[in-house]
Amino acid sequence: MQDSIEQYMQTVGKQARQASRFLAGASTLQKNNALSAIYTALQNSQPQILAANKVDMDKGHANNLDSALLDRLELNPKRFVAMLDGLKDVIGLIDPIGEITDLAYRPTGIQIGKMRVPLGVVGMIYESRPNVTLEAASLALKSGNAIILRGGSEAIHSNQAIAEAIQHGLKAAGLPETCVQVINTTDRAAVGQLITLAEYVDVIVPRGGKGLVELITNEATIPVIKHLDGNCHVFVEAQADLHKALPIALNAKTHRYGVCNAMETLLVDEKIAEEFLPLIAELYAEKQVELRGDAETRRILGTSVKTATEEDWYEEYLGPILAVKVVSGLDEAIEHINKYGSHHTDSIITENFSLARQFLTRVDSSSVMVNASTRFADGFEYGLGAEIGISTDKIHARGPVGLEGLTSQKWIVLGDGQIRQ
Amino acid sequence: MQDSIEQYMQTVGKQARQASRFLAGASTLQKNNALSAIYTALQNSQPQILAANKVDMDKGHANNLDSALLDRLELNPKRFVAMLDGLKDVIGLIDPIGEITDLAYRPTGIQIGKMRVPLGVVGMIYESRPNVTLEAASLALKSGNAIILRGGSEAIHSNQAIAEAIQHGLKAAGLPETCVQVINTTDRAAVGQLITLAEYVDVIVPRGGKGLVELITNEATIPVIKHLDGNCHVFVEAQADLHKALPIALNAKTHRYGVCNAMETLLVDEKIAEEFLPLIAELYAEKQVELRGDAETRRILGTSVKTATEEDWYEEYLGPILAVKVVSGLDEAIEHINKYGSHHTDSIITENFSLARQFLTRVDSSSVMVNASTRFADGFEYGLGAEIGISTDKIHARGPVGLEGLTSQKWIVLGDGQIRQ
Repeated sequence: MQDSIEQYMQTVGKQARQASRFLAGASTLQKNNALSAIYTALQNSQPQILAANKVDMDKGHANNLDSALLDRLELNPKRFVAMLDGLKDVIGLIDPIGEITDLAYRPTGIQIGKMRVPLGVVGMIYESRPNVTLEAASLALKSGNAIILRGGSEAIHSNQAIAEAIQHGLKAAGLPETCVQVINTTDRAAVGQLITLAEYVDVIVPRGGKGLVELITNEATIPVIKHLDGNCHVFVEAQADLHKALPIALNAKTHRYGVCNAMETLLVDEKIAEEFLPLIAELYAEKQVELRGDAETRRILGTSVKTATEEDWYEEYLGPILAVKVVSGLDEAIEHINKYGSHHTDSIITENFSLARQFLTRVDSSSVMVNASTRFADGFEYGLGAEIGISTDKIHARGPVGLEGLTSQKWIVLGDGQIRQ
Repeated sequence: MQDSIEQYMQTVGKQARQASRFLAGASTLQKNNALSAIYTALQNSQPQILAANKVDMDKGHANNLDSALLDRLELNPKRFVAMLDGLKDVIGLIDPIGEITDLAYRPTGIQIGKMRVPLGVVGMIYESRPNVTLEAASLALKSGNAIILRGGSEAIHSNQAIAEAIQHGLKAAGLPETCVQVINTTDRAAVGQLITLAEYVDVIVPRGGKGLVELITNEATIPVIKHLDGNCHVFVEAQADLHKALPIALNAKTHRYGVCNAMETLLVDEKIAEEFLPLIAELYAEKQVELRGDAETRRILGTSVKTATEEDWYEEYLGPILAVKVVSGLDEAIEHINKYGSHHTDSIITENFSLARQFLTRVDSSSVMVNASTRFADGFEYGLGAEIGISTDKIHARGPVGLEGLTSQKWIVLGDGQIRQ
C-alpha cells in the first residue's frame, strides 16, 4: 500500500510539473477562459456536489465530529453561491504573470530587469473545508501554477466532486486537466510523499492546526509558506488619545474572537494606566471578556481580576479572554512583544511621532500598526484582492499573502551580442 | 560531547537573536561606524591573522589537501588588501533597511505600506575560504542581521583570528560582539544543530559542494537559500546573427571554465547548423575544448567528435568540455533546457522578436537572456553591488542575490483611530 501511494504521488507530481510548463506559457485570456469554464461546470454540477457533501456530512455526524468542524465542512446552496462569487472575483484580478520591472541598462550595454513568473507547482494541505478546494485551485490557475490539493479526509467526497467539475472546465477550455489535481486517498502517507516531492513541487502551503503545520515544516524538503499562531498586542502608550485607544482596544479584542489578528495581550503604559484601565475594563465587562492581569493591573482594577501567569503572555486565546500588563514605557512594551508575541500583528496607540516611528522600526512582526486595530491585518483589507493565507515566515512572503505570494521573479537580460570581458 | 555542542549552539543562537534585536534598531551611521572599526581592527591584526592562516596552510599541506583547496585557503598580504577593499565597498553600499514603499491609503482611511527589514539571524555554512568570513559578516551587518558563521574546518585558525578582529571592531563601535559569531569547533554536530535552531536562526545560506548543500537542505528545519549547480545553455536559433552567435558561444564556454554561469550545452537550430557548427568548432579547437555531440552534430562535424550520452545533457563539466545538440527549433530547445538544465542561466541568440519573447517567457531559469553571454549572470554585473550567492531556488531570492536577499519586508499600517467594521 505504501509503495502504491508512493507511485501514485510520483505520478501526480510528474503530471503537475508537466502541466505547470504549459501554464507558465498560457496567456491571461487562456487562464480566464479556463476559470470561466470551471464556473460553468460548477454551476452545472451543483446537485452532484451538494449530494457528495451530504455523504461527508452524514459520515461526520455518524463519527461525532465537533460542531465547528461540521460547520466548516458543510456546503449548502447559499455557500455554493458564495463560492462561485469568489471565483468570479479571481477572474477579475489582474494577472501578475509576465510583469517586467526595473529594466535598466548596465555600463556593459546589457539591459537587466525582472520578470514575474509562476512558482511552478504548489502543494496545498488543508483542513476539511470544501470551498478552499476551489479557492486554492482558482488562485493557482490565475497565477499560472499547477496545484496538488490534499484536503482533510472528512471532505473527501465533496472535494472529489468539486475536482471533477474543475477538470471538466479545464478540459472544456483546452488546458491540461492535471493543472489541478485533488489527491484521491485519505491515507496520511500521501502527505508525507507530497512534502518531499522536491523534484516536482516548488512550494507547500499548509493550513490547519499549529501542530500539523509544525510537523509539515519539520518534515518537508520543499519550502513551506506557513501560518502559525497570532498572538497580537495593542500597546496603549502614555501619550495615547483615549478617544482612539478605547475603541481600538475594544475592537481588536471583541470584533471577532476566533481569528488570528485578534488582540490577545493589552499593554498599558504605567503613566496612563490609572486613567485608562478602569475605562476599558468597563467596556470589556459589558462584553464579558475575562481579564488576566499582572500585579499592577490587579492593584488598579482590583483582585477580582485573575492573575496572569507566564503562560498567559504566550497564549493565543482565540476567545473572550485577555491578558493585561502595565509596562514602564516603549522599551518594555517592545521587549515584551518581541519575546512573547508570535510576530503576527502589533499596534501602538500614541500621538507621539518619535515613539510611533521607533515602534514601527523595532517591533519584529509581519504587520506593525500605529493607531489602528490589529483586525485590519487581512489580505482584503490590505487591498491584495485575494488571500492565500497569512504568513508568519520572514522568507518569501510575510503577513497577508496575495496572488504575488504564488509567484517569483526571474532575471531577464537583453543584449545585442555582448560578451563578458 | 554531543550534549555540550548542543548547549554551545543554543547559547550561540540565543546570543545571536539578542544581538539581532539590537541591530534591527541600529542606524546606518552606527552600522557603518562598526564596519569602519572592523576595518581598522583587521589592519592592526594583519600579522596575527596571516600567522593563523600559516598554521592552517601547514596543516593543509601535511594533510595533503588538493591544490585548489589550498589555493582557496591561503591568505597573503595581497589577498588581505583585496579583502579589506571588499569591506570598504560594503561600507559604501546604500543601506537597504527601513525603506518604505507602496504606502497608500485604503478606503477605510488606513495607510498601508511595506518596510524593508533585516531577516534577523543568518546562519552561514561555507567552504574553507577565510575571506568569506569577512565578506559574509560585513554584508550581514550592513543589512542589520546578526550572523553565525561555520567555515570549513581547514580554515579554523584563520577564521578565529578574523573573528577576533571583527569582534574587537564591534566592541570599539559599541555594538554587541555577538552580532558576528564564528563557531569555534570543527565538530560536524555543530552544523546539524545550526540548521535546526529554528527558534534563533531565520535563514541558512550554505556554500560549497552540491552534496553538502543537498544534505543541509534535506535536514534543515529553517529556510535555506541554496545554490546548486549551473548547467547553462546557449541556443543558436535559425535567425541568429552569426557575428553575435560566434563570440557569445565562445565567451560563454571559454571565458572561465570553473564557474557556474559557464555554458555546458550548446543547442543549434537545424536550419543553421551546417553553417554555424564548423565555424564555432574551429574556434573551440583553438581553445582545445572537447566537443560531445548528438548524431546530427557528428554528421556535420565528423565522427572525431565524441558521442554525447544521455548523462552529458545533465552534466556540469566546469571544464573545457561542451555538449552539442542540433534541435528542430524553439520548442525542442526550450524542452531540452527545462528538462536537462539546472534552471540557472540560459541564452537565446536570435534576431526574431517573437521567438526571443517566447524564450524569455517559457524558459524556467533564474536568468534568461537574449543575445548575451551566460557569463553575465553575476551580482556585480547585474549592479547589485554585492553578492551573497546565486540562488537556484524560486522562493525568496532567485538568481544573483544581493544585500536585499538578507532582508524581508513587513507591512506597516498607519491610522488615526480606525477600527474594523
